[in-house]
Amino acid sequence: MAKKKAASLSQVIMTEMVLPNDTNTLNNLMGGKLMHWMDIVAAIAAQKHSNRIVVTASADSISFKHPIALGNVVTLKAFVTRAFNSSMEVYIEVFAEDIPANKKITTHRAFFTFVAVDQNGRPIEVPEVEPATPEEVELYEGALRRRQLRLILSKKMDPNDASELKAIFDLNEPK
Amino acid sequence: MAKKKAASLSQVIMTEMVLPNDTNTLNNLMGGKLMHWMDIVAAIAAQKHSNRIVVTASADSISFKHPIALGNVVTLKAFVTRAFNSSMEVYIEVFAEDIPANKKITTHRAFFTFVAVDQNGRPIEVPEVEPATPEEVELYEGALRRRQLRLILSKKMDPNDASELKAIFDLNEPK
Amino acid sequence: MAKKKAASLSQVIMTEMVLPNDTNTLNNLMGGKLMHWMDIVAAIAAQKHSNRIVVTASADSISFKHPIALGNVVTLKAFVTRAFNSSMEVYIEVFAEDIPANKKITTHRAFFTFVAVDQNGRPIEVPEVEPATPEEVELYEGALRRRQLRLILSKKMDPNDASELKAIFDLNEPK
Amino acid sequence: MAKKKAASLSQVIMTEMVLPNDTNTLNNLMGGKLMHWMDIVAAIAAQKHSNRIVVTASADSISFKHPIALGNVVTLKAFVTRAFNSSMEVYIEVFAEDIPANKKITTHRAFFTFVAVDQNGRPIEVPEVEPATPEEVELYEGALRRRQLRLILSKKMDPNDASELKAIFDLNEPK
Amino acid sequence: MAKKKAASLSQVIMTEMVLPNDTNTLNNLMGGKLMHWMDIVAAIAAQKHSNRIVVTASADSISFKHPIALGNVVTLKAFVTRAFNSSMEVYIEVFAEDIPANKKITTHRAFFTFVAVDQNGRPIEVPEVEPATPEEVELYEGALRRRQLRLILSKKMDPNDASELKAIFDLNEPK
Amino acid sequence: MAKKKAASLSQVIMTEMVLPNDTNTLNNLMGGKLMHWMDIVAAIAAQKHSNRIVVTASADSISFKHPIALGNVVTLKAFVTRAFNSSMEVYIEVFAEDIPANKKITTHRAFFTFVAVDQNGRPIEVPEVEPATPEEVELYEGALRRRQLRLILSKKMDPNDASELKAIFDLNEPK
Repeated sequence: MAKKKAASLSQVIMTEMVLPNDTNTLNNLMGGKLMHWMDIVAAIAAQKHSNRIVVTASADSISFKHPIALGNVVTLKAFVTRAFNSSMEVYIEVFAEDIPANKKITTHRAFFTFVAVDQNGRPIEVPEVEPATPEEVELYEGALRRRQLRLILSKKMDPNDASELKAIFDLNEPK
Repeated sequence: MAKKKAASLSQVIMTEMVLPNDTNTLNNLMGGKLMHWMDIVAAIAAQKHSNRIVVTASADSISFKHPIALGNVVTLKAFVTRAFNSSMEVYIEVFAEDIPANKKITTHRAFFTFVAVDQNGRPIEVPEVEPATPEEVELYEGALRRRQLRLILSKKMDPNDASELKAIFDLNEPK
Repeated sequence: MAKKKAASLSQVIMTEMVLPNDTNTLNNLMGGKLMHWMDIVAAIAAQKHSNRIVVTASADSISFKHPIALGNVVTLKAFVTRAFNSSMEVYIEVFAEDIPANKKITTHRAFFTFVAVDQNGRPIEVPEVEPATPEEVELYEGALRRRQLRLILSKKMDPNDASELKAIFDLNEPK
Repeated sequence: MAKKKAASLSQVIMTEMVLPNDTNTLNNLMGGKLMHWMDIVAAIAAQKHSNRIVVTASADSISFKHPIALGNVVTLKAFVTRAFNSSMEVYIEVFAEDIPANKKITTHRAFFTFVAVDQNGRPIEVPEVEPATPEEVELYEGALRRRQLRLILSKKMDPNDASELKAIFDLNEPK
Repeated sequence: MAKKKAASLSQVIMTEMVLPNDTNTLNNLMGGKLMHWMDIVAAIAAQKHSNRIVVTASADSISFKHPIALGNVVTLKAFVTRAFNSSMEVYIEVFAEDIPANKKITTHRAFFTFVAVDQNGRPIEVPEVEPATPEEVELYEGALRRRQLRLILSKKMDPNDASELKAIFDLNEPK
Repeated sequence: MAKKKAASLSQVIMTEMVLPNDTNTLNNLMGGKLMHWMDIVAAIAAQKHSNRIVVTASADSISFKHPIALGNVVTLKAFVTRAFNSSMEVYIEVFAEDIPANKKITTHRAFFTFVAVDQNGRPIEVPEVEPATPEEVELYEGALRRRQLRLILSKKMDPNDASELKAIFDLNEPK
């Protein structure tokens, strides 16, 4: 990882209109369509950070609280929060807007990870991320903890080794 | 929750071919497209269990380990593992097949949750799930633990109350 | 045709939701969209039987009796009934379900034929089909008669040679 | 059936380019996609003849002899050959063109039938067809025979009543 | 430009139905979708004239006066009006039909230009156009004036050199 | 037009990846697909300025100079430059990026106009635009001239009344 690159350089903004075929019986955006858009915007952010072909490695758990209606405009913002050798964590914020009603809400905050690969699909190192704004710094710092959670959930790490993560669960500390 | 319904009654099988527009630069299926398919198959399973309109409530974290190539046939199997009032956990297994090469692999195991709603989008109670096979029983039992993890991750539960989940982390219990 | 393969090994199940763009002015599934899905599920069944690339050779006549509404779930089941050198007849059953109304009907029974080909598009021999269940045996036996009808309709066979088919029309037998 | 309408008034021409997502592993147009286009062009022809909403009633058997390659231009021509109360038979001719190679071939001749319906989906009478050109007259005359075949194949007519059809099979006539 | 080719030989007719995903909140066809269809029909016309791969060079200004409703049938007719070395001007007429209401209107008249290229994307000469009907002759003659306007608007020509165009503006002629 | 609204408030950024079905035989983005995207991004900008339903009124001429390759990322930026009663001019800039090659170029600058309408499709007044940056001011000032050109080209204005436009052609002024 020879050089660092500012988090903001990977930022991507994507805007979509909710069309009839994207909606369920209640005329709201289907969750799977939104995840599809998240994957695309996040993949482009990871490409911009690494200047490489990237493949999706994981999507963190996502909850769907706010229905997004037919005709709404959906804005997705993504940037790379932190890199780990060949992998990158991407943060995605989703806004939904009912423009004629002048209402805009943040509907989702999600994390996807991507791996940069060469033409044969082999992982390849990427630059480190240099966070600048307070939000970027906070996301950079939390990335390690989220990574441990991902490794435990996919059974690649022993929970006892997840020192960063233990802080959330606060379980083995005397109170 | 007046009655119980067998887990197997909600089973849905979906088959898709990977077409050019579904693939990335390496000619492999994009992760977001797969999540889109997962959401559809799981939503149909939740509909079959509840005989209601359903909306996606959450998708658990998913990792993408096996690239699925252009021209592969993707089979998704889903059924409801357990119901909690108006919400249902759905288990999804994904297989990818390169038929001319006679190769078939399990590529993903994922969990989505759905809420059954009435025509106005208000949550409505669904039948309990009656598991029968060992796999159904195991998934039924694990559903409580996964639910606690979802609640903690979405900050709706205090980790100290997650008795089921602590078993995984095994952190503050004498052994 | 060195070996035989069980009919059930080629079975494929496909599930689709009827979306707005698939429907006509009456909000019912367009016939052409259903034929498109039939062709895909049947092609996958033929691929599974032959482990080859397959191309559609013919679709038997199809009649559309039951409208399938927007939001319905359509299930298509297909398997290879019989092979003739490089060609395979595939039987397709279509079910439509209005899940909230708990109604499921069989809407179509159709036959498509496919030819297995090599990378240059040249026909290549496939295994014979071994029928097991009474339904598979009946379809296996009827395949010869349907094949004669196809050959006559496409002017590749003289009706007088269609001994199997004459039984249906019962025309030149003394009564 | 108060009035007659010229066959030519229902003529529709549709042109499509074969795009990557329409093709199989050999980069040829999938049969199901072509049937989808046939259904659309034929439905528009039936609409033009009847000035009504129409629904697909049947598709006659179709055989696929000529592969149509990626990038080819496909032209579909359709017109109503004959009406029977509320139903109409539509004839469809398909041409495929490799324009840079200056090659154009007729790839298919097919028949679909449609029923004109009112806003509640109930069948409604349509004008009779007035054929003018020799091709229109020949297709008009053959329509009765094809209709008998459709009725027999869908088990709505006893083969012994199919006087028009017997001529094809030429089975019980002294020669 | 060795030979001439009749304008009529490049004529292409394309027919589309307005589907839900093509429409805006008022259930009318979106302008961008119509421009997409115009580009396809015009590209095919330019291919037919040149028997070459063609790429879009420009679209003249288009105004949208008549809303086209969901369910309408849209017919696009295109032919090459005139060729200039490797470039071709294509004229496109658009009709919208509400068939059950028996209403058909001309909604657009537009001009696109295309360049014929070889496999490496380099411009390549095309045949001249031979206009025959009065409409073809008028469009052939106007093509020079429209070309000057395009060159001025894209800043490739000094307005003082646009002798053909000055006639429209009628500005520097004594009256 | 009671109040003014900053041009920047209507800015919309849209990002798209060029997929196989969007490309021509040379694997470059089809012009019509790009115009489709332009229409969507510009319509959203006009919606944001007016908080109304909007319909496309016109697209100014567009020339296509830079091929955009399969796999490229296309970014479209749009904002409203000026309002005229119920109509709005939107400026669109298009960038194409080959990210692995670290190349980004501006490929298009285009103008579309939209009309704000009520639920019955009747034009309705929109706020004036308040330009702030030098680019916004320059585009605001040029909007009047472009509007005259649109009116003349669509034959709604006599060229002699186009005082703003004459400046471009510089034709009837002594030099």
